[in-house]
Amino acid sequence: MGSYVGVFGMGVMGQSLALNIASKGYSVSVFNRHGEATKKFMENRVQGHEDRMKLVSDSYDLKSFCDSLETPRKIILMVKAGPVVDAVTDELLPYLESGDIVIDAGNSYYKDTKRRMDYYAEKGINFFGMGVSGGEKGALVGPSIMPSGDKNLYDTYLAKLLTDISAHTADGSPCCDYIGPEGSGQYVKMVHNGIEYGDIQNIDEAYWIMKQLLGMSNAEMADVFESWNNGRLNSFLVEITYKILREKDPETGDDLIDHILDEAAQKGTGMWTAIDGLEMHMPIPTMAEAVFARNLSAIKGQRVEASKVFSEKPAAHIEDKQAFLADLEQAVYANKIIAYAQGFQLLSAASDEHNWDLKLGDIALLWREGCIIRAGFLDRIKSAYSEGKKVVNLILTDEFREEIRAAIPAYRRVVAKAIECGLYIPTMVASLQYFDGYTSEKLEANMCQAQRDWFGAHTFHRDDRPHDESFHHTWEKLD
Amino acid sequence: MGSYVGVFGMGVMGQSLALNIASKGYSVSVFNRHGEATKKFMENRVQGHEDRMKLVSDSYDLKSFCDSLETPRKIILMVKAGPVVDAVTDELLPYLESGDIVIDAGNSYYKDTKRRMDYYAEKGINFFGMGVSGGEKGALVGPSIMPSGDKNLYDTYLAKLLTDISAHTADGSPCCDYIGPEGSGQYVKMVHNGIEYGDIQNIDEAYWIMKQLLGMSNAEMADVFESWNNGRLNSFLVEITYKILREKDPETGDDLIDHILDEAAQKGTGMWTAIDGLEMHMPIPTMAEAVFARNLSAIKGQRVEASKVFSEKPAAHIEDKQAFLADLEQAVYANKIIAYAQGFQLLSAASDEHNWDLKLGDIALLWREGCIIRAGFLDRIKSAYSEGKKVVNLILTDEFREEIRAAIPAYRRVVAKAIECGLYIPTMVASLQYFDGYTSEKLEANMCQAQRDWFGAHTFHRDDRPHDESFHHTWEKLD
Repeated sequence: MGSYVGVFGMGVMGQSLALNIASKGYSVSVFNRHGEATKKFMENRVQGHEDRMKLVSDSYDLKSFCDSLETPRKIILMVKAGPVVDAVTDELLPYLESGDIVIDAGNSYYKDTKRRMDYYAEKGINFFGMGVSGGEKGALVGPSIMPSGDKNLYDTYLAKLLTDISAHTADGSPCCDYIGPEGSGQYVKMVHNGIEYGDIQNIDEAYWIMKQLLGMSNAEMADVFESWNNGRLNSFLVEITYKILREKDPETGDDLIDHILDEAAQKGTGMWTAIDGLEMHMPIPTMAEAVFARNLSAIKGQRVEASKVFSEKPAAHIEDKQAFLADLEQAVYANKIIAYAQGFQLLSAASDEHNWDLKLGDIALLWREGCIIRAGFLDRIKSAYSEGKKVVNLILTDEFREEIRAAIPAYRRVVAKAIECGLYIPTMVASLQYFDGYTSEKLEANMCQAQRDWFGAHTFHRDDRPHDESFHHTWEKLD
Repeated sequence: MGSYVGVFGMGVMGQSLALNIASKGYSVSVFNRHGEATKKFMENRVQGHEDRMKLVSDSYDLKSFCDSLETPRKIILMVKAGPVVDAVTDELLPYLESGDIVIDAGNSYYKDTKRRMDYYAEKGINFFGMGVSGGEKGALVGPSIMPSGDKNLYDTYLAKLLTDISAHTADGSPCCDYIGPEGSGQYVKMVHNGIEYGDIQNIDEAYWIMKQLLGMSNAEMADVFESWNNGRLNSFLVEITYKILREKDPETGDDLIDHILDEAAQKGTGMWTAIDGLEMHMPIPTMAEAVFARNLSAIKGQRVEASKVFSEKPAAHIEDKQAFLADLEQAVYANKIIAYAQGFQLLSAASDEHNWDLKLGDIALLWREGCIIRAGFLDRIKSAYSEGKKVVNLILTDEFREEIRAAIPAYRRVVAKAIECGLYIPTMVASLQYFDGYTSEKLEANMCQAQRDWFGAHTFHRDDRPHDESFHHTWEKLD
């Protein structure tokens, strides 16, 4: 009898996932375009482990790889997102049979996943998109998994495997659940990553405020982040932050953080999230600012030049450091809630737009463990969606409303101080502005509509007439 | 002999452009898919005007329209951007000859323009993209024109006509110049509109600050905007703003602005600009926030609900109103410079990316008159680009550096006060943050890179090693 599942791609993520699968008792065939990687994997991570040797088998050509799998075949692609996914699936086709299942586990663009599903369906292949978060370690010990495609096939052939290899919460719930049709799994993963960009930038801004405004040492900052991690900000990202701050550089013996260059890179999922927000007309400024923050950091040469031209920065003076740190915790927490609120607003809009019927509370549960944004906080979001009523925005729910209310004054003090001192904390600022705009019955957009009607005859609505009536005013007489 | 040029599309913009063309002494044939619009145009705006009757001829089928034009034909499409452009050009094809010229004057997406150029070139048709700004009045009396396509054909067949019908500055320079190949004309128009979104939002935020923080009446605000219009903020948009504030509602006799609903709409060009910035990895947060501000305004139902949940807003207290107004003028001016700086950064990046060789100083001149963002300010940008040296960023140039430096303290006071008072002024905040980030030698991105290396092995650069070396640290031991 053939292997239960195949893993195509022996990069660091593919290796980890294959070992995870074997550790749960499933037989798994592995393949890599360049066989050398497969060989190394077998030598270094399989041989010598009796349990793994029983379950992991290696193939060095596509035919043997596909022949080694029980049918219908289940092949998980662990390859670079983009054209490689099409190329690899096309290469597999001659060795597949109608009814086989190919699962793309990369950060593919959700519209590509939909296209692939339609294209390969014509060839009899059931294509699935699957968001996977957790990095190398998550893939190895249990990631958060967001699969999408045909529901019946999922239930019949994939649910047990994917649930077994996913992360589990302390109470035993798996962090894997069917998301929906089309590329909804990859969409949800994309928004997860957009939120991750926000979460990361939020923490990094807190680090920056402590360092620049409070003049704290790495060790002092580590203690603060550790204490936050014992509170409501408990999360994987806060945990690694305090550990990073204590990490020594093996080369110099200095704190490693001080030798890491301040130029952030990106792989594109945060950018896609921001673009999707723009295309859906959904305000998600916090996520967009997190992406721009990376872009701005990356043009360091320009920044160095600009810092010489504008070398004067206002002096920071904080009277009561402990009080400010307490304010900062409030600011970080409020920014976090507001960033998640934007992410869930986008998920909700996408669900409506694509008729995906996303279960937002359940999605929150998938992110409790295994993934990069894992945090106890996600239980709170699940609760917000469990009240049985439609959630308009997380910030308005019983679950978060009072915490936001309590945090806002402190949040304002932190942001105003950073503005005075010339500190760059774009997501903290953007989230607070979003809050102030979102909670304003009236905004300045009446002027925008007047201007647009003047120069472009774009019309406007009136506050004293039904919303379906449009008006154009003759602002000036044209011939 | 046939007409010099044809105008396809008798919407409000097409009508205005046809009359503009005739007013410059060129014969013009006009056509509209639904002949009724052409008939009305002839009845209402041509008949009875002897000069127009001599030069404007109407057609009611495509063959007569194309037959009525001298060859090579020059047909300007004044139709809705999008699939209509393809449909209309395809309809024209049977009546065109090799060498004819079709010019799309709509707000088409620049990638579509490139695609159309290639597609219709195979059929012997020379397709041009042309950005046109100025609204209905601009089209009539002289808009700003940004044409792109084949340079030789432009010089031979289009330069004279387009230059003649364009706006002219007081010193007689036309606001029309060849932009470059491909969809570069529409790209430049797109960024123009992105800047326009920023300019509009900037002014609207100033209106909002005066109204909400200073409690000023419409009449008082009109006076301030008028005084600003007599200074360095002189521009079309500031001019219409003070006139809007004085406009009476014909229905109620109240100030019209107070009856216009605060839900801003959009046509998409600002959104495209923000998306292009994200795709180019170019930080243009001010333009993105201007788009999100419209999105946020548009979900008024949610805002009303949220304003009831969070009804408490901090009280505004401004001691010295006149001093604050002076600060506000500084803030608006600095925000304007920074928004334009981002726009020109994007143009510069796009020029490099697509090998368009855009002349940024000349583009600034095209926007001096005719278009929506017209302002004396554009001369300053031209000057910045005329110094003979490469401009890294407008805020660093001799032309703007000292003004920015002088404005920043006041700008900080305005933004900090708005933050304290809970006022939504997203572009003012975003531009100031951009300034603070751009002028910082060091940012918090070292932490971002450490975190990314931890969970994704994404590697980092070191501050004490060459930039082409990447490092991965073993943060924790995995099996």
